[in-house]
Amino acid sequence: MSGVLVVGSVALDSVETPFGARDEVLGGSATYFSMAASYFSPVQVVGVVGSDFPDSHVELLQKRRIRLDGLTKAEGRTFRWKGRYCDQMNEAQTLDTELNVFDTFKPVLPGDFRKTPFVFLGNIDPVLQGEVLDQIESPKLVAADTMNFWINGKNADLKATLRRVDLLFVNDAEARALSGERNTVSAAKKILTMGPRAVVVKRGEYGAMLLDAEGFFALPAYPTEKVCDPTGAGDSFAGGFMGFLASVGAVTPAALRQAVAMGTVLASFTVEGFSLDELSRVTLERARERFECLRRMMRLAELPERIEFQSI
Amino acid sequence: MSGVLVVGSVALDSVETPFGARDEVLGGSATYFSMAASYFSPVQVVGVVGSDFPDSHVELLQKRRIRLDGLTKAEGRTFRWKGRYCDQMNEAQTLDTELNVFDTFKPVLPGDFRKTPFVFLGNIDPVLQGEVLDQIESPKLVAADTMNFWINGKNADLKATLRRVDLLFVNDAEARALSGERNTVSAAKKILTMGPRAVVVKRGEYGAMLLDAEGFFALPAYPTEKVCDPTGAGDSFAGGFMGFLASVGAVTPAALRQAVAMGTVLASFTVEGFSLDELSRVTLERARERFECLRRMMRLAELPERIEFQSI
Repeated sequence: MSGVLVVGSVALDSVETPFGARDEVLGGSATYFSMAASYFSPVQVVGVVGSDFPDSHVELLQKRRIRLDGLTKAEGRTFRWKGRYCDQMNEAQTLDTELNVFDTFKPVLPGDFRKTPFVFLGNIDPVLQGEVLDQIESPKLVAADTMNFWINGKNADLKATLRRVDLLFVNDAEARALSGERNTVSAAKKILTMGPRAVVVKRGEYGAMLLDAEGFFALPAYPTEKVCDPTGAGDSFAGGFMGFLASVGAVTPAALRQAVAMGTVLASFTVEGFSLDELSRVTLERARERFECLRRMMRLAELPERIEFQSI
Repeated sequence: MSGVLVVGSVALDSVETPFGARDEVLGGSATYFSMAASYFSPVQVVGVVGSDFPDSHVELLQKRRIRLDGLTKAEGRTFRWKGRYCDQMNEAQTLDTELNVFDTFKPVLPGDFRKTPFVFLGNIDPVLQGEVLDQIESPKLVAADTMNFWINGKNADLKATLRRVDLLFVNDAEARALSGERNTVSAAKKILTMGPRAVVVKRGEYGAMLLDAEGFFALPAYPTEKVCDPTGAGDSFAGGFMGFLASVGAVTPAALRQAVAMGTVLASFTVEGFSLDELSRVTLERARERFECLRRMMRLAELPERIEFQSI
């Protein structure tokens, strides 16, 4: 088995933004992740949906050759999330969450999934994240996402999982809450003492920051003018990141930086439409163009030999 | 006359941050600007102080060979600002502002200041910014700062001044307010239709963005762990930017990008102490080191020829 394994939610989302509203459209962290990763690498999904989950959604994912053998269909309703983004769309306001079949979700990996080299633990209970790792055999890289709900509510469990994780995705507020540091730079450094050997801080419209053994790397967001719906941006980021890394096959400092950029690119497509509308229409040519645009945005020449005008 | 001319406030600041408090210390936009610029280029200051302004502050600036012939000493008290930063220190909460002698300030340029090639119009009334430009003879580059107070209160005057400005410094909120655009990328593009041929969006801990004829450039903040007092960061940024550009002498796309980085570096020193404590201790060696650190943080390798794993 090659490629990437993802465990996380597959959901039906209802969302309102200044650009419109959508009702019960395809969503969920594992969904965005797997679609983004599928452009670069084979993807295996572990999750659960209810008996009401539309076949058309399954087909959309299967068309991208995403393996759904680990996606259980349970009696009951699919996980639902309802949210709203106002004005600057930095943060979602959650209006309603129905766990439904996700409430009793127990991740069970089909036998041939257990040898997947790149593993992404979506934003679920850290105890379940640990149970996934128990089923995985000698992975090349384990990455995880988390959120303040687990940082505050299941801190000890989360810390136990973190000791088994190579790379953590967080946002600024999560980095601060997890580390107890006010300063994001200090927070990222502290997280590297908690297990992960790399941390990626996702900053929405401000881009992303990576800290690993090589030091800091920072990347702006892709300069899109068309932010329609930010739902799934973080998971698309992680999917692009992990899919790209799996396609390279080796976790080198240079590849990690390229993975941050590719994650940024995939997230930029996601926010330009509702649900997976734009993400599902990505081509490698378009991804490569945006990657090159980011590279151009970061071009900075060396200083001249002499810059001072006088010595004081 | 060579170098940079700055018009703006010279002030006594009282500030509280989570790291301590200082009472009536040296501050003001022209002060931070001129100190930062002085590492690269001759600087001429136009401003006003009251009869209570301490000689020691004048001496600090003169030691850096900053020319103060345009700094009038008027009867009365110096401009005072009192503010507080809480928690994440993103934004100052103004507790008190006393304009004092600054209230009737009329910028008058000493004869030999009028030929300064690089001009920075600090954050003052746009009518006064225009009066400075009336006194300037064939500048190489005119840059300006502004704020929501003028964007909202003197919009027509500001727009008249902007038509005479080559480069505008703003933050995200100012860019949006000035342009009427929700999206910062769209806002920056719109500002380029209002007069300036380049715009720099300052984003504090998230770095800075430049838009010019070459397209977008984005730079992270220097990853300092010691943010003690953000007062003057924006003006130090502008000072490092303009001083560096004046030392290069030519406004090329590559030099503009380097100037953004050098502005970022100078701002990083300012925030590490109160008042000008750290900014006044910068050396070119330390500035160069931080510049190189930023360059390393932005290193991103080209994509391999093939990244896809399958064609679908």
